[in-house]
Amino acid sequence: MNSQEFREIGKATIDLIADYHDNIRNRNVLPSVEPGYLLKLLPEDAPEEPEDHQNVLKDFCETIMPGITHWQSPQFHAYFPTGQSFASMIGSILSDGLGVIGITWNASPACTELEVVTMNWLGKLLGLPEEFLNCSEGPGGGIIQGSASEATLVCLLAAKDKKIRQLLENDPTLDEDQTKNKFVAYTSDQCNSSVEKAGVLGSMKMRLLKSDNNGQLRAQTLKDAFEEDKAKGLIPCYFVANLGTTGICAFDLIYEIGPICQEEGVWLHVDAAYAGAAFICPEYRHLMKGIEYADSFDMNAHKWLLVNFDCSAMWVKNSYDLINAFDVQRIYLDDVKTAAKVPDYRHWQMPLGRRFRSLKLWTVIKMYGAEGLRKHIRDQISLAQYFAKLVQRDERFVVEPEPSMALVCFRLVNGDKITRDLLDNLTKKKELFMVGCTYRERFVIRFVICSRFTNKEDVETSWNIIKEEADQLIPEKMNAKSHAISAFDQLGTIGIYEKSK
Amino acid sequence: MNSQEFREIGKATIDLIADYHDNIRNRNVLPSVEPGYLLKLLPEDAPEEPEDHQNVLKDFCETIMPGITHWQSPQFHAYFPTGQSFASMIGSILSDGLGVIGITWNASPACTELEVVTMNWLGKLLGLPEEFLNCSEGPGGGIIQGSASEATLVCLLAAKDKKIRQLLENDPTLDEDQTKNKFVAYTSDQCNSSVEKAGVLGSMKMRLLKSDNNGQLRAQTLKDAFEEDKAKGLIPCYFVANLGTTGICAFDLIYEIGPICQEEGVWLHVDAAYAGAAFICPEYRHLMKGIEYADSFDMNAHKWLLVNFDCSAMWVKNSYDLINAFDVQRIYLDDVKTAAKVPDYRHWQMPLGRRFRSLKLWTVIKMYGAEGLRKHIRDQISLAQYFAKLVQRDERFVVEPEPSMALVCFRLVNGDKITRDLLDNLTKKKELFMVGCTYRERFVIRFVICSRFTNKEDVETSWNIIKEEADQLIPEKMNAKSHAISAFDQLGTIGIYEKSK
Repeated sequence: MNSQEFREIGKATIDLIADYHDNIRNRNVLPSVEPGYLLKLLPEDAPEEPEDHQNVLKDFCETIMPGITHWQSPQFHAYFPTGQSFASMIGSILSDGLGVIGITWNASPACTELEVVTMNWLGKLLGLPEEFLNCSEGPGGGIIQGSASEATLVCLLAAKDKKIRQLLENDPTLDEDQTKNKFVAYTSDQCNSSVEKAGVLGSMKMRLLKSDNNGQLRAQTLKDAFEEDKAKGLIPCYFVANLGTTGICAFDLIYEIGPICQEEGVWLHVDAAYAGAAFICPEYRHLMKGIEYADSFDMNAHKWLLVNFDCSAMWVKNSYDLINAFDVQRIYLDDVKTAAKVPDYRHWQMPLGRRFRSLKLWTVIKMYGAEGLRKHIRDQISLAQYFAKLVQRDERFVVEPEPSMALVCFRLVNGDKITRDLLDNLTKKKELFMVGCTYRERFVIRFVICSRFTNKEDVETSWNIIKEEADQLIPEKMNAKSHAISAFDQLGTIGIYEKSK
Repeated sequence: MNSQEFREIGKATIDLIADYHDNIRNRNVLPSVEPGYLLKLLPEDAPEEPEDHQNVLKDFCETIMPGITHWQSPQFHAYFPTGQSFASMIGSILSDGLGVIGITWNASPACTELEVVTMNWLGKLLGLPEEFLNCSEGPGGGIIQGSASEATLVCLLAAKDKKIRQLLENDPTLDEDQTKNKFVAYTSDQCNSSVEKAGVLGSMKMRLLKSDNNGQLRAQTLKDAFEEDKAKGLIPCYFVANLGTTGICAFDLIYEIGPICQEEGVWLHVDAAYAGAAFICPEYRHLMKGIEYADSFDMNAHKWLLVNFDCSAMWVKNSYDLINAFDVQRIYLDDVKTAAKVPDYRHWQMPLGRRFRSLKLWTVIKMYGAEGLRKHIRDQISLAQYFAKLVQRDERFVVEPEPSMALVCFRLVNGDKITRDLLDNLTKKKELFMVGCTYRERFVIRFVICSRFTNKEDVETSWNIIKEEADQLIPEKMNAKSHAISAFDQLGTIGIYEKSK
């Protein structure tokens, strides 16, 4: 393909994607294919000769598209959102067009430096303490990792390295391997599976401590676990706090837990993969009260902040902890100090290579502006609250627990089985997509506002689909609450989400 | 940005990138900026209001572009290539446009299945044994990882898990932690730094064994290391063979080493990050003779195979080894068997999330065709051989060792210092970019054909720049060899690289 052909096919691809988004409401959110559908459709061998370019786009529409679950559909309410925006795509095209790798500063100075700049921007927008930022005097700084999974593992490995160095300083005769085997990591039983996996990958026992009735891990529970393990001769090393759990989006109380970690010399990592984005709105920052106790903080800009995967934004208070753990060259600390303002990011992460990922963060921040991003978060939370009100007005349903961020959990009052049936039937219908979880031993359905396209009418559409399916399972009692849909105007002011954004 | 604005700005971005490539020869390959240049240029805080979209592209050209090292420039001869092509960009735009995450099959069936299909295609193109492929009857299969670093670490962790399970089967009373501490990994001293780092990250001692005079690790060296360690009570666990070392692109002899690993029950991982791409041409497959002994094989399609970073293609003979190591859900083996043809890739990798990366591999294979990809490899090797001939005709220079793939190492006969000076002076001129390495204790300059745009004239341009700089250091002796440039037509047939591809 020469550059003239690229101009043509590239623009046709831009139109294809724009059309896809313009007409996304015409598609079922879930596809109607069986496992193996594409293996049967596509040839077993690669083509020998190049195919006509237009044909590739046609193949995409005819073979790939039918097997897509439409995460950007307004009726996608499963998991948490995955970031996508036109602004992000512009950044990605620029990044792919340059095709540079930022293995060192001189391998492409702008690649390293734009990451520093945008991570300062984002860190300030989130209200992170100064010491986490690259622009502070100290050794703190931000870096883009591939995923929250990666960030959790990177910090676990750094915590392990830091702890063993501290212990060896006190007692150089220590058996390093045997001591490391005694290290223990902690998190709550509400953690994402990737946190548990970090323990497996990083060879550290990971204890999933029991959360309370509200899905929060309490300080006393953590303290007891530390004491229990120390009594066994084990060494507490790493703790992952969840700001916004995967199930019900509960928030651990950092201000309660932080001092305990500090006292014990345990690395406190904050996993705010989804909900962290909300901290760009000052009214939600109380949920990260005590953040100054954290050693590291991670949020996925590629979840709720309109940046395409992968862009996991991680900050550490002390980047030397990463460099000491990951730099196989063991460069002199003097060099590191000089480099502090222009970090050698390859020593802050697991792989050697790195894409120019900050470009998409940059285009998103510039094209939305801080206010545009805050509006996105606030609108989505408003829409979730609107959905919760619709559910609450139908007495066959219970909203439980209280909605958190853009997540609403609900169930049928008639029990777990019928709630599961409702979800199963809805999934089979393929018109909207939700997943379930457990709250206080009850099965609840999670409804998340995910797509940036979702507006008030879409929420009503989703609710009507749910209600209709519930009607099949439980005939609706005729009472005031059941007429929720016809009473929209009485619900008071909610943020209006612009369709065209 | 609404979809209409995206159509406009998206197309303007396509033109910007096409223009960039059309005019890439007008730029110095290396930028003229000092560390911190961008930190000074850009505002310290994110903009509050959205910026005009056109302005973002203008800012890109004015602030980012001056800080770019142009990896796709025909005069970029450093490291190894990083993949970039218009075909790959089309795949990326489609992937970003869909914005789906393939955490499970049903999270987007096509995302999992296209990866299966394209990895079968690529595995067959490379001539990998059937048992590595998803389409085989057995438990083998291919997956796209983020980088060769990640693949090396993933397999190290799987090897560790497999070994401990085997040992525990024989003796369930074993102390698991203490036994794991005895595991040792091996590679040659020519390995990429990421292999050494995998040992650090995966908590396994990694021994860098001495390679021979040709940069190859010999079977006897490995055997001796095994014996030595076993005598100390240690347990050989993992070996990384290098097919194409980072320095001089040497090839370990798998057929020699494989049987020794097999006998010892050591996991044999083959790191063919760069050179692996050449195996799509049958004439280079002799370099992977013995590949049937490998447990895992990795090559970066994002290096020499025109796919944009990240697309590291990894195959394993037994995917259960990965699932056993990484699946925190510990699902029943029966499920795994059913899923074998449609794998749950999240259990084959470290992170939970996964982008739709196979789309760009798919567009590249379809738009180039297998023959187009082979032509790319062959043309680049021919160009490297052409460069070698130019150097050899100048008696001030020595080409050493023999060129391998698209890499030519050379030095001035007058010694290391003057060779270093030559490289330093050339780097300061910024017109071409090469890096050095050590071969048989001599400093050599590495010249790699990297860009897909590089043609015969570009190679001549690069050589003339080198020659000119050498003239400043050593006056050229007037002899027949020195007139190489004027004798092109006598060099015989070499592959002609089409400018317009």
